Amino acid sequence: MNSWIKRDLKVNWHPYTQMKDLETDPPIVIDRTRGIKLYDENNNYYYDTISSWWCNIHGHNHPALKKAMKKQLDRFEHVMFAGFTHSPAIELSEKLLALAPGKLSRVFYSDNGSTAVETAMKMSYQFRCNLGQSGKKYFVSLDQGYHGDTLGTMGLSGVDQFHDVFTPIVKPSFKIPTPYCYRCPYKKTYPTCKLSCADAFEQLLEKKSESITAVVIEPLILGAAGMIIYPPAYLKRIADLAHRYDVHLIIDEVATGFGRTGKMFSCEYIKNIKPDFICLSKGITSGYLPLAATLTTEKIYRTFYADFDKNKTLYHGHTYTANPLGCAAALASLEVFEKEQTLAHVNELAPWFHAELDQFRDLPHVGDVRHLGFVGVLELVADKQTKAPFPTAKRVGKEIYRRGLEYHLLLRPLGDILYFYLPLCTSRKELQTILNSTYKVLRCTLNE
Amino acid sequence: MNSWIKRDLKVNWHPYTQMKDLETDPPIVIDRTRGIKLYDENNNYYYDTISSWWCNIHGHNHPALKKAMKKQLDRFEHVMFAGFTHSPAIELSEKLLALAPGKLSRVFYSDNGSTAVETAMKMSYQFRCNLGQSGKKYFVSLDQGYHGDTLGTMGLSGVDQFHDVFTPIVKPSFKIPTPYCYRCPYKKTYPTCKLSCADAFEQLLEKKSESITAVVIEPLILGAAGMIIYPPAYLKRIADLAHRYDVHLIIDEVATGFGRTGKMFSCEYIKNIKPDFICLSKGITSGYLPLAATLTTEKIYRTFYADFDKNKTLYHGHTYTANPLGCAAALASLEVFEKEQTLAHVNELAPWFHAELDQFRDLPHVGDVRHLGFVGVLELVADKQTKAPFPTAKRVGKEIYRRGLEYHLLLRPLGDILYFYLPLCTSRKELQTILNSTYKVLRCTLNE
Repeated sequence: MNSWIKRDLKVNWHPYTQMKDLETDPPIVIDRTRGIKLYDENNNYYYDTISSWWCNIHGHNHPALKKAMKKQLDRFEHVMFAGFTHSPAIELSEKLLALAPGKLSRVFYSDNGSTAVETAMKMSYQFRCNLGQSGKKYFVSLDQGYHGDTLGTMGLSGVDQFHDVFTPIVKPSFKIPTPYCYRCPYKKTYPTCKLSCADAFEQLLEKKSESITAVVIEPLILGAAGMIIYPPAYLKRIADLAHRYDVHLIIDEVATGFGRTGKMFSCEYIKNIKPDFICLSKGITSGYLPLAATLTTEKIYRTFYADFDKNKTLYHGHTYTANPLGCAAALASLEVFEKEQTLAHVNELAPWFHAELDQFRDLPHVGDVRHLGFVGVLELVADKQTKAPFPTAKRVGKEIYRRGLEYHLLLRPLGDILYFYLPLCTSRKELQTILNSTYKVLRCTLNE
Repeated sequence: MNSWIKRDLKVNWHPYTQMKDLETDPPIVIDRTRGIKLYDENNNYYYDTISSWWCNIHGHNHPALKKAMKKQLDRFEHVMFAGFTHSPAIELSEKLLALAPGKLSRVFYSDNGSTAVETAMKMSYQFRCNLGQSGKKYFVSLDQGYHGDTLGTMGLSGVDQFHDVFTPIVKPSFKIPTPYCYRCPYKKTYPTCKLSCADAFEQLLEKKSESITAVVIEPLILGAAGMIIYPPAYLKRIADLAHRYDVHLIIDEVATGFGRTGKMFSCEYIKNIKPDFICLSKGITSGYLPLAATLTTEKIYRTFYADFDKNKTLYHGHTYTANPLGCAAALASLEVFEKEQTLAHVNELAPWFHAELDQFRDLPHVGDVRHLGFVGVLELVADKQTKAPFPTAKRVGKEIYRRGLEYHLLLRPLGDILYFYLPLCTSRKELQTILNSTYKVLRCTLNE
């Protein structure tokens, strides 16, 4: 074990990690990066197939992003965003609003996905209070949704493994069933099911809409739950119901935003969608710096806009709100989208990528194959007939992670769900290499 | 109104701001920064007397910080921190632990002060669960404490103006009285009071300690409550009681850390203090980039360290956990502390600064003067005899803000509490200018 690793294991507590596991699988010490490759101290490289937790967009160490950040560093690094403003935040807000669907007109900045969602939750509830409807105080979310790790967003989440232990210290939302077609809780098949899983939302609204302020949902892909991809028609139905029952629609695009699915924002797969809030983070800076944004409508904003003594001010903020370096990175990333025609590249490669993925169905333990844009998912099962999962103790995902590294791949399955969440700059050739190596990893892992 | 301002007011929602106020007091468009000065488009400058919301340490646009960040940009910008590590995070953790008091041995990174505190809350509670004590689920905090704007940290907070509207969607902590000596709730005087306000904590622990996991406290200065500075002996008593009743001590050094009070960490004013957690953010990067850290003990860490199937893993993390650019800035900041002998500078100037502040007592509306290190506070009152505050509608703080700008000062009173939270690099000459100008601002504002 080299000295950096020894030193790391003495002082750091890594996120989402059983630290004891690191004694047998020590962390890899990254020394430099380039494009979609991470290089360790010994010059071994690993394809970053999951975009470093779903945030990298244009590849690592991109010259345009570096240049923009250095330029901003020479101008100024940070000033408070109350009483002050700056061109990077103004330009970024203008561009985000121009790109976003619906009638969004206001941007509130924070630091990460959790706070982007918490900001939306607080705005939604205070909007009700501003109108004298303080009883509309509950949130609705999917029973396998994931919206962050703060106590507030954990209340929305349904990923048991992550959050069960904290139940006694969390305020839970109302949960509705997840449209997980491969494991449909109603044993139905889309589209003949007519989205009957959404009926639960309608029934809930019929009974409780007067106490509900918002529904919070990941658009088309439930990430942490296991990259569950659901039909756009489901989101459309949820949006329509929310609208009909005067419940805000909070779209959590933290993981899906910025082209990952082939559209700039995943909710654009629904024509004319009108979110009340869109939450952004991760890819907003192309994976360079922490930054988040909550977009909302003029209708909501206007209820806060009042004489000071009316007590309608939103008392919310974070020190680094609209950090100019983060804003500069985000602006540079949007420019790269145009210059490199990033979305066109994704949509050009996607059909071929999806067809390649579909071929994995032939492997004995690949139960389901799902894909959307540059996201591809292989759900691994012990038995394809019964869809029975592997025993948890087998830790198939961990074995794949280990083997992946041997094949220059950073694969980090969610349980037994192997997925690709590729940087959007990934070339056809790189993608082919990644898929070929993954095929080998699966063959040798699952045949044992 | 120039075009940047017009554009800003069309798209941005500023933190902690009644947006309607900006129509009469438009935001200032910052164009560049240097040292402790912020420059607008027209080359007007403003002394950043509150360190851009208490985060700037070594001044803006510092060459050493810029250089370090550019160097890191040329190496790599960000990689995920699960399964991977890097030298900036390892070195930073080692340095933070070496600087921190007590027996802290582990660092967990996140993005802002709120998440630093939420991480401590979750670790504290899961520690109890790991030991089979899931009933120890409540937190204790001061009734005027402030620990962040997420729903979880709002449960700890007692700053009514900020958070009252959200009470129905928050889980409140047990509150104990704030040691606000100028407005002592018991009408006593320190030290003859023998800290009787701390008795409430002891009584609470006597009754409820079996259901309490931790007490969360800002060390020596309650920032958002109005820069209330309390005697170190109070913190010592709280620490002793927490220890005696098996309740974790979570020290929130987000605002006070990194030399602001004359010690690297404010809790060091208590000899041999042994926190179970210290939460850091704001000044950690000298105000350049969002980064936060939660430090804890080996005792706590060890209860999470187990075979994977024991379900003791901490499922917590943020995408940009240990962002290498943030870590590089933080390391550079610690180097500047040594090179510029920052703490020595603060402690050399502090007695003179405090004496100068004390002279403000002569002004008709200065009810209280408080100071610690580079933090100085003037509590303004309508009547010095009765300590009666100004009517809220008078918005004295806002008027001071407005006048301050005319005198090249960024003053941002908390209500009627005017305070300085100076970058630690502020020179004696700059400080003299700031104090002289402030004196003039107060004279012309309060004499009207």
